[in-house]
Amino acid sequence: MTGTVYLVGSGPGDPDLLTVRAKRLLETADVVLHDKLPGPEIIDLVPDDRAEDVGKRAGGERTSQAEINERLVELAREGQTVVRLKGGDPFVFGRGGEEAEYLAAHGVPFEVVPAVTSAVAAPAVAGIPVTHRDHASSVSFVTGHEDPAKEESAVDWEALAATGGTIVVLMGVGRLPDYATALREAGMAPDTPVALVERGTWPDQRVATGTLKTIVDVRDEAGIEPPAVTVIGEVAATRERVVEWLANERDDAAVVDDG
Amino acid sequence: MTGTVYLVGSGPGDPDLLTVRAKRLLETADVVLHDKLPGPEIIDLVPDDRAEDVGKRAGGERTSQAEINERLVELAREGQTVVRLKGGDPFVFGRGGEEAEYLAAHGVPFEVVPAVTSAVAAPAVAGIPVTHRDHASSVSFVTGHEDPAKEESAVDWEALAATGGTIVVLMGVGRLPDYATALREAGMAPDTPVALVERGTWPDQRVATGTLKTIVDVRDEAGIEPPAVTVIGEVAATRERVVEWLANERDDAAVVDDG
Repeated sequence: MTGTVYLVGSGPGDPDLLTVRAKRLLETADVVLHDKLPGPEIIDLVPDDRAEDVGKRAGGERTSQAEINERLVELAREGQTVVRLKGGDPFVFGRGGEEAEYLAAHGVPFEVVPAVTSAVAAPAVAGIPVTHRDHASSVSFVTGHEDPAKEESAVDWEALAATGGTIVVLMGVGRLPDYATALREAGMAPDTPVALVERGTWPDQRVATGTLKTIVDVRDEAGIEPPAVTVIGEVAATRERVVEWLANERDDAAVVDDG
Repeated sequence: MTGTVYLVGSGPGDPDLLTVRAKRLLETADVVLHDKLPGPEIIDLVPDDRAEDVGKRAGGERTSQAEINERLVELAREGQTVVRLKGGDPFVFGRGGEEAEYLAAHGVPFEVVPAVTSAVAAPAVAGIPVTHRDHASSVSFVTGHEDPAKEESAVDWEALAATGGTIVVLMGVGRLPDYATALREAGMAPDTPVALVERGTWPDQRVATGTLKTIVDVRDEAGIEPPAVTVIGEVAATRERVVEWLANERDDAAVVDDG
């Protein structure tokens, strides 16, 4: 009897933002395959004897996606109930789609457990709604990381700028200068508000804000590092109107506004 | 002592997809302001004596956003712990941003509790990843409902088509013919896969699939009604590759594929 594989999203990092279903599966699954992306507070919830770290091997190199896929099938065929724990949502830049296709192609039943995506949650806890009736009729998520196999960026920054909606870049700290320039060249105003939220919902969350023109300097002065989410658009200015009353903001949070 | 207002997302409708934090707040808040959008399974979790339905008044008309805002401030000033329960995520087309600004302007402390958005979860439980390394480097969320005060559509379908990424339309059943046409006129191929997920994650969830060319007929034949999410893009074809092994799919689900 083949076991079921659960493709489970961990959410943005705060264990309180796990779904009820994800939490229960972490507590009951026979084995949990994870990497470091869910963050320490959530990984600590999985007992060591049921956790399998597929993020790194002894030599320090990463387990390949192909090896993870094979391991999921192997464990399920042993009849085990398997959780594949993914940082954020499994189907938002998480390769969950590839895992689902591999499992289906090998006749392994699977279930998807969607999660709170950091693309929405990291801005939210910083006081930024990704859509707003007055400012943004759409929101687009892109990733700052590209598949290295691609010769050029598949992200059409010009089209994204033309939507007029909010742009949220996941894993976009390193390439911030590239796309900030691309968006300005596409006609976005230099004073478009931008916010960086580092480790959103984690205990050491940090927020830095500026504009399309200033944000690279703000990043450098604040020392913002991955993982972080970039929010570009008028909605980013909501933060300054609400932050004084925002109970999500931890008192000791390191914040650099309008650098 | 002013109480805190929690802007809490209910997620897509399955109570198991509430966050741990949302569930706890529903159990402990002094009062929960809600409408019908979270769905019956979640609303039933709130004891009657602590629930306040702001979706409809006696005469059948809706409570205005201004009245809801005032009520939140009033209850907080009485020192109560208030949950404002929103369908889906509070900051994804949920007017949570407006409520946050109103609370801040009136000196009421508030916290945002992000949720699983149906824009990601409804496609996911139908076997559709909104992004995919091979098919979609971005995903955009828009709403089929427009602010009636706007004279023309604020959504730039041409720019959205040009992104090359997945497009997810929330509350987009009624205006499907309009934007299916707009996207074809913007150059999207008529055979672009499209899926409709009605009441995603609810017990009576339904899925219908087709192409940009056929989806209006598919909708009519299947009788798809609001609330539903529309997924447009190559990722929508993932469903057919995985659905046989997708344990999310309930056995008795009414499904119309490739109508």
